[in-house]
Amino acid sequence: MAAPQKKRIEKNAQTMAAKQREISISEFFTKNRHLLGFDSPAKALLTTIKEAVDNSLDACEEAGITPVLEVEIRPDKPMNLGVELSNQGEAAAAESAGKNGKNGKNGKTANGAKPGAKNEERYKLIIEDNGPGIVKAQIPKIFGKLLYGSKFHSLKQSRGQQGIGISAAGMYGQLTTGQPVTIYSRTGKNHPAHRFQVMLDMKKNEPNILTGDETIWEKDHGTRIEIHLTGSYKRGQHSVDNYLEQTAIANPHLHLTYRNPKGEAIIYPNSTNDLPPEAVEIKPHPYGVELGILARMLKETKSRNINAFLKDEFCRVGPKTAEQILTGAGLPPRKNPKRLVRDDIQKLLDSIAETKIASPPTDCLSPIGEDLVMAGLKSGVEAEFYTSVTRPASVYRGNPFQIEIGLAYGGKLPGDELAKVMRFANRVPLLYQASGCAVHKAVLTSNWRSYGLQQSRGALPTGPLVILIHMASVWVPFTSESKEAVAHYPEIIKEMKLALQEAGRRLGKHIRRQAREKDALKKQDYIQKYIPHIGEALQEILAISDAEKEEVITTLTDTLERSRKL
Amino acid sequence: MAAPQKKRIEKNAQTMAAKQREISISEFFTKNRHLLGFDSPAKALLTTIKEAVDNSLDACEEAGITPVLEVEIRPDKPMNLGVELSNQGEAAAAESAGKNGKNGKNGKTANGAKPGAKNEERYKLIIEDNGPGIVKAQIPKIFGKLLYGSKFHSLKQSRGQQGIGISAAGMYGQLTTGQPVTIYSRTGKNHPAHRFQVMLDMKKNEPNILTGDETIWEKDHGTRIEIHLTGSYKRGQHSVDNYLEQTAIANPHLHLTYRNPKGEAIIYPNSTNDLPPEAVEIKPHPYGVELGILARMLKETKSRNINAFLKDEFCRVGPKTAEQILTGAGLPPRKNPKRLVRDDIQKLLDSIAETKIASPPTDCLSPIGEDLVMAGLKSGVEAEFYTSVTRPASVYRGNPFQIEIGLAYGGKLPGDELAKVMRFANRVPLLYQASGCAVHKAVLTSNWRSYGLQQSRGALPTGPLVILIHMASVWVPFTSESKEAVAHYPEIIKEMKLALQEAGRRLGKHIRRQAREKDALKKQDYIQKYIPHIGEALQEILAISDAEKEEVITTLTDTLERSRKL
Repeated sequence: MAAPQKKRIEKNAQTMAAKQREISISEFFTKNRHLLGFDSPAKALLTTIKEAVDNSLDACEEAGITPVLEVEIRPDKPMNLGVELSNQGEAAAAESAGKNGKNGKNGKTANGAKPGAKNEERYKLIIEDNGPGIVKAQIPKIFGKLLYGSKFHSLKQSRGQQGIGISAAGMYGQLTTGQPVTIYSRTGKNHPAHRFQVMLDMKKNEPNILTGDETIWEKDHGTRIEIHLTGSYKRGQHSVDNYLEQTAIANPHLHLTYRNPKGEAIIYPNSTNDLPPEAVEIKPHPYGVELGILARMLKETKSRNINAFLKDEFCRVGPKTAEQILTGAGLPPRKNPKRLVRDDIQKLLDSIAETKIASPPTDCLSPIGEDLVMAGLKSGVEAEFYTSVTRPASVYRGNPFQIEIGLAYGGKLPGDELAKVMRFANRVPLLYQASGCAVHKAVLTSNWRSYGLQQSRGALPTGPLVILIHMASVWVPFTSESKEAVAHYPEIIKEMKLALQEAGRRLGKHIRRQAREKDALKKQDYIQKYIPHIGEALQEILAISDAEKEEVITTLTDTLERSRKL
Repeated sequence: MAAPQKKRIEKNAQTMAAKQREISISEFFTKNRHLLGFDSPAKALLTTIKEAVDNSLDACEEAGITPVLEVEIRPDKPMNLGVELSNQGEAAAAESAGKNGKNGKNGKTANGAKPGAKNEERYKLIIEDNGPGIVKAQIPKIFGKLLYGSKFHSLKQSRGQQGIGISAAGMYGQLTTGQPVTIYSRTGKNHPAHRFQVMLDMKKNEPNILTGDETIWEKDHGTRIEIHLTGSYKRGQHSVDNYLEQTAIANPHLHLTYRNPKGEAIIYPNSTNDLPPEAVEIKPHPYGVELGILARMLKETKSRNINAFLKDEFCRVGPKTAEQILTGAGLPPRKNPKRLVRDDIQKLLDSIAETKIASPPTDCLSPIGEDLVMAGLKSGVEAEFYTSVTRPASVYRGNPFQIEIGLAYGGKLPGDELAKVMRFANRVPLLYQASGCAVHKAVLTSNWRSYGLQQSRGALPTGPLVILIHMASVWVPFTSESKEAVAHYPEIIKEMKLALQEAGRRLGKHIRRQAREKDALKKQDYIQKYIPHIGEALQEILAISDAEKEEVITTLTDTLERSRKL
């Protein structure tokens, strides 16, 4: 190799090394904001409300309070320059791209650079609940630090799970308006209310508290959040309106008042005072752990020996199962968990795989239930046929989950469009990334023709059909942090397809019966048309009276009617 | 409200507070491993190789070295217990789910818990390149720390961008086998080679160095990585084999040797020695910044006044543009950037939107080019018609990007299947999450019927068609950290559709010409059949000789032939 080339290589290893840097989690998500659901102004509005509502519902249910929520989207110091500016900007960019193209180092210039102000407005979002409130010390971190929360380490069904959502919403507001998040919270009548203004330090991923005082608040307990942000309010399928409507369907215990940017109040009263059965936290199941996880658990456990470790740290492991596992692994039960080396851990894992262990309990899940799925569909969709299926719980990667399906068919639904799919995960409606979702794949790969519907290859079925799918799990594997679609785990898709099959068979029966009835009716009409002629023919041949002729016609019509009913 | 209920609420705010915890980034990604592309053993194998190959190619190109890579998948101490164990385990789980169901607190038990060992094997993956190597001090962090890298903060096209991939692969290997990553690296003939064994401390997200010594290595410069992991080797659409084949198509300068688990070597020689034109790093474009970002840039800049700040920190801002922006904002050019308050920053932003600024330069991009897209398609797909389109560069959120399309049609491609779509981002093949990708949406919402193809509503077109789409950008907005699909930015989908339209029109012309030719041929055949009869009829009527008749037939046939050609 020539010397100059060698020199270039050495220089490069050095140059590259100099550029290596740590990336802060806030920087990462700022640049990748679409991962959090903030890639468009309309979506940003929805995501922010969704994260706040999720948290409020989780907190109310955990505290045993029937949730009463208020959501408001208030126009906030509208950027008067907004639309006009952006149009100018766009024209200018187009113009300058042509004019100034030659300024580019190599004369090439990208098209379409334009300021982002188009279709954007500034809003103040307010979400207030009657939940248990947040203790003072926790408020700044919950709203001013990414990856901080109570639900990540807990194995039970909840809406939030990552400790990212609400602080990310605050971060987005801060990025687009420079304003902090304001939080009011009170944990009970005998406690003072607090008011905080918090920003997020993007380099350190730590809260920056602007103000934090006691304040007067008329509520005994609850939390109120105010976030200023740049967004876009739209109607339609992906709208806040639609999200809140679907949230009401999946949460019949929620009383919700929603004020849209025009100041109109829409009220969704709760249809029941019963909270869903509380989901109970479970421990990990032995079949769900891997070598690395098991090694860490052994290192961190407070149990003094591996026998106690197995019984304390896992679900479904009693004295007998623990003994079986340890005998299989050839490890003494009184051994210190911290003393196990890699080979021991591998033996333990192999022995777990060999041991019969009951599946995890399912009281960590809180499905909506067949009746409420049906009731929800009926309240939201006008159709002629409804059915619903709640599957028994199943497991993926050690995580219990449960699939529920509702179908609505016919009636006023449009017959020549693709079926509409409503997706829910832990009672939260999913509005974006439909085609990337496991639900989509399950619906697409089900054979709807066998249930009497039309379906082109690679497409959803066509017909007057609404499909509702709910996944309840201690850990929903979303395809991104924005929690918009469920990842394609084969176990999950399989359960969805089984549920669709069961509901689809019922639908097929209905459609076939309908077709049969229609067919019979057509035949009857056809025969009925000829009965009078038969009567007249008989009259001519047998020379019967008019009265007799009428009698023959009536008898024949009756017979036809009866034979059809049979 | 009754006292006991109040008590419950207060207790709950406290209980919930006690559970609030920081979530380490490694914990987060361990639980959300599907975000990184490790949700199945087959995908884990692919993702690991992909991340290593991405890094090797980036490093070689940056150093100006024609890349020579070796990839090997070596069966590693096969877990003899593997399949048998898992079958037993599964049967056991099913049995015990029935038997022990009543052990559950509420008698309910999830189905299908089973040990994860099914279809999994242990592999040792080896990826070796002739790149510039990595300087000693950087090796542990690059392989043992998530969110650490050189490309995140740099605005130019590269395969890696997040600083997550290769350390995540190491983390997955560690989780499933407990083994460290081994790295050999050397930065030049006059430098020693180094050998490191690194693990990732999951709590701290910091490297844990097991060994780090000088060693003997026959290579002058390059990097070799060895990762042990649990995976599954499969053939087919989502396979490593397919990924490497497509990588060779999109990187004609790459010389690749691949050894599959059977020890068979497959060689993809480079078809050119020319590296792609080097992508040049650019500064951010003023139209791409928002209030929060601008505020941070002002705080961190080394420029002493805002006039210099604008010129130093952005592309396309010269003295004149800077003056225009500052005049528009009503700010004095010599003002200290650190002294700007929120209102000033808003004014600056508004003025930027009002100012004509040229679009960003595009030498930060390195598209494949129409000729090489076509050549790549021809080498990989046997068809009768090929076309390719490289669109001019465009911009989304301030980031330049460029779309390229290739179509292959007819020939031996199956005519009754959905079109096959090959997706690439910055020359990297994307194999998973097709339906969640902007590419999918662009293809689905293009009107293929107008180009002469069949297409059902909501489905890909049907026909003997392969569609290749490449997106080159300084920042590809992937839908998740696993970099499998492009997010649905409207600007990106629009460009893809424009490219598809242009290529589609050419395809439509071809299909129509083909149809016309077929039609003309049919008509000709039809007439040709009657010419001899006409000859005979003429002979009868005009009483001409046999020779004359033959002449008439020849003349008529010639005329027909000539008229068809016109």
